[in-house]
Amino acid sequence: MTKRALISVSDKAGILEFAKELVALGYEILSTGGTKKMLQDNNVAVTAVDEVTKFPEILDGRVKTLNPMIHGGLLGKFDDASHQAQMNEHGIEPIEIVCVNLYPFVETISKPNVTWDDAIENIDIGGPTMLRSAAKNHQYVTVIVDSNDYAHVLEELKTDGKTTIETRKKLAAKVFRHTAAYDSYISNYLTEEEFPESLTLTYELKQNLRYGENPHQKAAFYQKHLGSDFSLAYATQLHGKELSYNNIQDGNAALQIVKEFEMAAAVAVKHMNPCGVGTGATLEEAFDKAYAADPTSIFGGIIALNMEVDVATAEKLSHIFLEIIIAPSFSQEALDILTQKKNIRLLTIPFAQEKQDKFNVVSVEGGLLVQEPDRHCFVDADIKVVTDREPTEQEWEALQLGWSVVKHVKSNAIVVTDAQMTLGVGAGQMNRVGAAKIAFEQAGEKAKGAALASDAFFPMGDTVEAAAAAGITAIIQPGGSIKDQDSIDKANEYGIAMVFTGVRHFKH
Amino acid sequence: MTKRALISVSDKAGILEFAKELVALGYEILSTGGTKKMLQDNNVAVTAVDEVTKFPEILDGRVKTLNPMIHGGLLGKFDDASHQAQMNEHGIEPIEIVCVNLYPFVETISKPNVTWDDAIENIDIGGPTMLRSAAKNHQYVTVIVDSNDYAHVLEELKTDGKTTIETRKKLAAKVFRHTAAYDSYISNYLTEEEFPESLTLTYELKQNLRYGENPHQKAAFYQKHLGSDFSLAYATQLHGKELSYNNIQDGNAALQIVKEFEMAAAVAVKHMNPCGVGTGATLEEAFDKAYAADPTSIFGGIIALNMEVDVATAEKLSHIFLEIIIAPSFSQEALDILTQKKNIRLLTIPFAQEKQDKFNVVSVEGGLLVQEPDRHCFVDADIKVVTDREPTEQEWEALQLGWSVVKHVKSNAIVVTDAQMTLGVGAGQMNRVGAAKIAFEQAGEKAKGAALASDAFFPMGDTVEAAAAAGITAIIQPGGSIKDQDSIDKANEYGIAMVFTGVRHFKH
Repeated sequence: MTKRALISVSDKAGILEFAKELVALGYEILSTGGTKKMLQDNNVAVTAVDEVTKFPEILDGRVKTLNPMIHGGLLGKFDDASHQAQMNEHGIEPIEIVCVNLYPFVETISKPNVTWDDAIENIDIGGPTMLRSAAKNHQYVTVIVDSNDYAHVLEELKTDGKTTIETRKKLAAKVFRHTAAYDSYISNYLTEEEFPESLTLTYELKQNLRYGENPHQKAAFYQKHLGSDFSLAYATQLHGKELSYNNIQDGNAALQIVKEFEMAAAVAVKHMNPCGVGTGATLEEAFDKAYAADPTSIFGGIIALNMEVDVATAEKLSHIFLEIIIAPSFSQEALDILTQKKNIRLLTIPFAQEKQDKFNVVSVEGGLLVQEPDRHCFVDADIKVVTDREPTEQEWEALQLGWSVVKHVKSNAIVVTDAQMTLGVGAGQMNRVGAAKIAFEQAGEKAKGAALASDAFFPMGDTVEAAAAAGITAIIQPGGSIKDQDSIDKANEYGIAMVFTGVRHFKH
Repeated sequence: MTKRALISVSDKAGILEFAKELVALGYEILSTGGTKKMLQDNNVAVTAVDEVTKFPEILDGRVKTLNPMIHGGLLGKFDDASHQAQMNEHGIEPIEIVCVNLYPFVETISKPNVTWDDAIENIDIGGPTMLRSAAKNHQYVTVIVDSNDYAHVLEELKTDGKTTIETRKKLAAKVFRHTAAYDSYISNYLTEEEFPESLTLTYELKQNLRYGENPHQKAAFYQKHLGSDFSLAYATQLHGKELSYNNIQDGNAALQIVKEFEMAAAVAVKHMNPCGVGTGATLEEAFDKAYAADPTSIFGGIIALNMEVDVATAEKLSHIFLEIIIAPSFSQEALDILTQKKNIRLLTIPFAQEKQDKFNVVSVEGGLLVQEPDRHCFVDADIKVVTDREPTEQEWEALQLGWSVVKHVKSNAIVVTDAQMTLGVGAGQMNRVGAAKIAFEQAGEKAKGAALASDAFFPMGDTVEAAAAAGITAIIQPGGSIKDQDSIDKANEYGIAMVFTGVRHFKH
């Protein structure tokens, strides 16, 4: 009996060659619609699906293959006598190979100004059903949803006259990954609730990683289709080894910080915390400040810059050991300088962002926390001066810089800044005064006349006291403690200008 | 013309009442298999699907509804003249309501000793196809996959004789969430690759949260079906307000730490870092140590304990302000004491774990990092003494405790311990000596004769030097720096016993 292959593809790449090879191997090709026409136009003999179903295509193509003559052929067990008898009785012949891909739903909804009707019409019904039937019956049926699998299947057919069960199983698993992803995109498009009863998220493999946070942990980096485009997943790597797991986390953290600034800015990150942030009239100046902020910790760190890297900045960057530099672009001369260093990774990323992630996620054992990203910033904040003294212009600049940075420092976080740079970063502490002490110690003499930013309110007056002792003259914090007045009184006592933002910036 | 409703459900809850109401509203019920029998047995008039399709159920029920007489009825546009003409020509009547739920694939694969064939047989083909057809055509068709929606649909039908488009749209979105989740489970079951080209993860809503890490961020907590059962998602809350986003992260961190210990242990966590870890012969002693480790930071913290909370421990716990206490159980007397505090949350969680998460995930902008959890522990480590002096028995105990804790402290991390408790925790620092300084300062005089654990190797000898100055006598660290010999020489010089584990424990 002639073996049969059903082919119906939206993506036609490679399909003609595949069909010709199948014909050469003795297969009868069943097809429909555009695929049928394309094969026939290229002199491949095709049996129309409606010849098999004895039922015409109806409803503008909505119903073509949803027919027992097709699905009986896909779902019958080839070695089950009862199945075979029923198939014979109804004139159903088995279909050994199914090659189907789906209406381009994601591509459709990615178009600007896509209409609802257009999106709905691009929800494929017949295609997923054939794929799922064939995949369920992979004990007997070979199912292909990805044109990259044509070659391997042909090779097995040519060698043994059939595919191996291992191959059929792998292809079936791929089909269910594909239909799961397909319906995940549809459900996310149709769902209006922010937190529906069931949440299905889908990602595409960007790269396998050598390992995770540590060498004994396997890991991979996945890309979120239709997610943020200001993302390392969309960065272009110009030079150096591939990114590691920790590089991606650090790079992501650095990008989120540098994006806070309009003027030239440089951000150095270690272990997901900024160790130095600098701004300036030029990128070189910004980098000088970021470096001066903590010349020790920057060693082996990663740097994000928000302007094209020029020669002057590149020269300075080349004098220290850095893991990664990320910027919108590099001048050719800058690139010539930096690519002389074998181990540095250079990446560009477009800063003109069109899409943002709506949510971020993080595992806990047995579950997932989902939340809106913290996109609140200084200009959104309802700033109130709560002390007798208003900040000076210079202090306002320092407060804004500190507030933009402290949001990205792991809690409890205290940041000491002047108008252009961080002077001390107290990160990840279990108590607030502890974070302040770390920041003051790092800032040293420079804390005198500097500003302090705190990611959460002061539960009591002790942090203001410590700030005054360190020489801090301006403070920015959310406010909202029942003991706010203690902190305000202390600030007034020491002549410190203090402002409340009304917004907390915990980050863990 | 009589309106028609197709009903085919695996979960029969509420279906009889729903069908009776539809009949009362003038609907003809189409059904098949067990649902048909159940309705007929209860005197509901039913039209068999094969009367509609004029085609018998074949292949052990694998092909029943995959038929143009059904899918034409689901996919035709009721107000499109051309569609209606084609339907008339082929004798296809519209189906206004579809009520379908699917073969219980997840329940099947959750059974112990499930066979491959049983799993495969429980991949539903006909059901998802009807759901998807009806959901695509939700402009006209009402589709129900969840028995909780019966009442609302009936209410609309009784009020207006039809459902609203808003309702049909919501129901359609729910269908695609359901089929996405269904195929996600199937794909994860069939997929052997650890990091396939497409990864689809599905979660069920456990609870909406008041907010995320901060009040301006919306958030929710999702449960991972078939994930770890040692999880806050499976905890029982005995008392107090519902958990917040930060509670869940902190609680999760505390549980992972306390689970490291066989003997009685207490862990206090703030901002995802342990501020105090204590062990002892009794739980009370363990808590005393955890408290003494850092009596300041524990304020407002969360506590995890690995044994039943008794009266003595409860008394002590009741004297400080804590957000949460998690334990395997509480004695009744302990509960009586602790429930007098209105604001404390009390949770129990089963410590006998059957399932573990295979991977954890975390967002970066536009992507997702996926990695194996860090489950490496002291007993797995290939411990080597690298100094002239071996640790004493007491030092070994302190080193093991430190190594078990430092793995869970945010990097760079240094922990100072004695044989029973943490004395200083240096967390989340951008440089290693900085982390050590924090730990030494907290430990103070107690650092004399204590052990130090470092989550990563020492890049140079300076940390050993600082440790010696603080009075540390034993060190545990991964080793592996090109300058290891400097650290070993320094340790020998100061008589410090140092061991290498060969394993790094970065955590961010």
